[in-house]
Amino acid sequence: MKSIRIGMMGLGTVGGGVAAMLSENGVLIDKKAGSGIILEKILVKDIAKERSDVPQNIRAILTDNPADILDDPNIDIVIEVMGGTKEALEFVRTALRNKKHVVTANKDMMAAYGGDLFAEADRSGSALLFEASVCAAIPVVDVLKHSLAGNRISRIMGILNGTTNYILTMMSGEKSEYSQALEKAMDGGYAESDPADDVMGRDAARKIAILASIAFNMRIKYEDVFTEGITGVSLCDIEYAAELGYRIKLIADAKFSDEGVEARVNPLFIPTGHPLSNVDGVFNAVYIESDMAGETMLYGKGAGAKPTASAVLGDVIALARAIGGGGAVFTGCTCFNEKMIVAPENAVSRFYIRMNVKDSPGVLSKIAGVLGDHGVSIYSVVQKKAQGQSAEIVIITHMVMEKNMLDSIAKIKGMDIVNEFGSLIRVEGED
Amino acid sequence: MKSIRIGMMGLGTVGGGVAAMLSENGVLIDKKAGSGIILEKILVKDIAKERSDVPQNIRAILTDNPADILDDPNIDIVIEVMGGTKEALEFVRTALRNKKHVVTANKDMMAAYGGDLFAEADRSGSALLFEASVCAAIPVVDVLKHSLAGNRISRIMGILNGTTNYILTMMSGEKSEYSQALEKAMDGGYAESDPADDVMGRDAARKIAILASIAFNMRIKYEDVFTEGITGVSLCDIEYAAELGYRIKLIADAKFSDEGVEARVNPLFIPTGHPLSNVDGVFNAVYIESDMAGETMLYGKGAGAKPTASAVLGDVIALARAIGGGGAVFTGCTCFNEKMIVAPENAVSRFYIRMNVKDSPGVLSKIAGVLGDHGVSIYSVVQKKAQGQSAEIVIITHMVMEKNMLDSIAKIKGMDIVNEFGSLIRVEGED
Repeated sequence: MKSIRIGMMGLGTVGGGVAAMLSENGVLIDKKAGSGIILEKILVKDIAKERSDVPQNIRAILTDNPADILDDPNIDIVIEVMGGTKEALEFVRTALRNKKHVVTANKDMMAAYGGDLFAEADRSGSALLFEASVCAAIPVVDVLKHSLAGNRISRIMGILNGTTNYILTMMSGEKSEYSQALEKAMDGGYAESDPADDVMGRDAARKIAILASIAFNMRIKYEDVFTEGITGVSLCDIEYAAELGYRIKLIADAKFSDEGVEARVNPLFIPTGHPLSNVDGVFNAVYIESDMAGETMLYGKGAGAKPTASAVLGDVIALARAIGGGGAVFTGCTCFNEKMIVAPENAVSRFYIRMNVKDSPGVLSKIAGVLGDHGVSIYSVVQKKAQGQSAEIVIITHMVMEKNMLDSIAKIKGMDIVNEFGSLIRVEGED
Repeated sequence: MKSIRIGMMGLGTVGGGVAAMLSENGVLIDKKAGSGIILEKILVKDIAKERSDVPQNIRAILTDNPADILDDPNIDIVIEVMGGTKEALEFVRTALRNKKHVVTANKDMMAAYGGDLFAEADRSGSALLFEASVCAAIPVVDVLKHSLAGNRISRIMGILNGTTNYILTMMSGEKSEYSQALEKAMDGGYAESDPADDVMGRDAARKIAILASIAFNMRIKYEDVFTEGITGVSLCDIEYAAELGYRIKLIADAKFSDEGVEARVNPLFIPTGHPLSNVDGVFNAVYIESDMAGETMLYGKGAGAKPTASAVLGDVIALARAIGGGGAVFTGCTCFNEKMIVAPENAVSRFYIRMNVKDSPGVLSKIAGVLGDHGVSIYSVVQKKAQGQSAEIVIITHMVMEKNMLDSIAKIKGMDIVNEFGSLIRVEGED
């Protein structure tokens, strides 16, 4: 049996998972790969660090010199699981230049420098595989690049961040407000000590930039993605959503149409019949609309050492078979389309609006009037008595351009009959 | 640009879909394939048949001579979409022997002769791809063979038949009995005029045989799958299920454990929180449990011209890239495991039992006594007054071996206090 030699850069959570998986499932992996997969060297920052929990056979192959991997002609595949965009970028670039194939789990690097790296891979004839960089165990990169390759994809939307989905699920299940749910998520290890990247939607924005680039065959950058987090979602919005037949999810959403490409991350009312509405807790899911396959959804664990290792080794096995078969035949960059990015203010959708108003005659009519003046048409409205001399108004609109919606809200906020403007959340579905 | 030449065998629903997709999305497909994909010849039975709905460029390449495809050295890939297991099998075997790669949508052929065909493909160094043969647009073959390749898969279960899922969804949504729902499904074109293969679970059994073979790396045949259809499911079972927090689905289910492999198709109570419980209408879904990736689900359209064409062309594109890259590097047969098939009567699960009994004191205790004598332990019980002097008893059991369950039911059916035995349906979940 031929051998395929691996150099791994990084031995953190994911690296540890990869090493463990190779050791536990080694026989199976070799059979699937058609070659003996040998973990030859692992790059770590501090080789002197105490690692009593790491098996002896792994400790024996550590190095702190990147050249031991990058310049070793016996190494066929480099697994990059160190993260970050500085050293990792430099190492991956060098590895490709040295004609090594690369498997990476690095979302930040792929979102920011994917185009450059594919160009480098093309020049040297190496493969750059990155399934693990987006949603870990969910095989969305492979499905987009291969299974659905002949389709025109019109939309890709998903729950791409486990932390925020855990928080929203907890708010809904335990009837708690955002701050309490966040605290519990942090206590349970489901949110990082600085959760800003997750709760502000930035993590999901990087992922949808990568996925939309593959789906629409054009480069979509992180900066092209309109991003709004979940910090403004309150328990009463979740309860109104339930009453109206929806669930609120943080949705990363990209659409391709004649007008251009729209990419955004924001809380969204999802109808309870929609497959994404039932994706709860830390689970992720990606929902794809295409011309031939129709609606497809992929569901699974979007983070964690084992699910990420699973994706890394799926790519390694595919590479090993390609090397064994005489050629690496992977789809590299397919960004042959160029299309305008639709400005967020020109995007069209339905909206949910909640506000606290004075409980007096004619209030609803005045608010409806302002909406009408801006071309915002009302689909449904609920008015409820609130505390004291106030009432709560909840409106779902028909499809409207975002700038019209925002202009009308600015006007409404200035009205003296409005005590407090509550929420503005987009609603999935056409009129 | 290099050209890859295709010979297609069959121009029915799926063949028409493939031809249409190649014509509509040809530019995209060529870019993804890295080669010009040329549909060179199409085999039809009756070349004289009137085909005014078929475009002229397609009519121009029809032939009724298989040798025009099988013996043409210019043909790289044979697409088999004629169905059946006689001629199709012979043609696919010859194509592989003649060193052509084959893409097939033929479930019956793969379920019955997959092993032989893989052996043929191995001998000649050709690839045999069959994503389209199971659940059309759901990329489950690719995900099992590649994305999850390094995982030990312990369970694969799914809703693999659109007709039965449509019928069960309709029974539940419109509160109709099986026969009415079947009639509507036939009227709407969702069930064939002879629906036996679908409603008796045989179609799903062939699919789970193929999927379990890949998932567990061992040959599982159609005959190894215990099969029970949906004809015995009544509306009141569906309503009791809802009351108890479940939905009834026809589930194809295969488990791998130290005791052996269990493969079955039967109606199953699925807890409403389970991702499969929300898969409705004609949609299919496959749910996979594995050691590293954890829980994964794939959801989409499991039948139809376009979804099946999408899967066929996904395989064609992958093959074209492989040919362009200098070698076909596809995972062929991976049946290196041998494991006992667990006899159905030794399988263990929870059960739902419904029966109509005489409404008199001590009846429940007598029934519980018979269950207890056979080692069947009760998890929950509901007794309701029924018409006249009768009552309805609904029991959910703890985990029990199927033969004990069946023995106790045989005894119960013979009791004079039992007016009519209603249903016995398995319940998903452990104690």
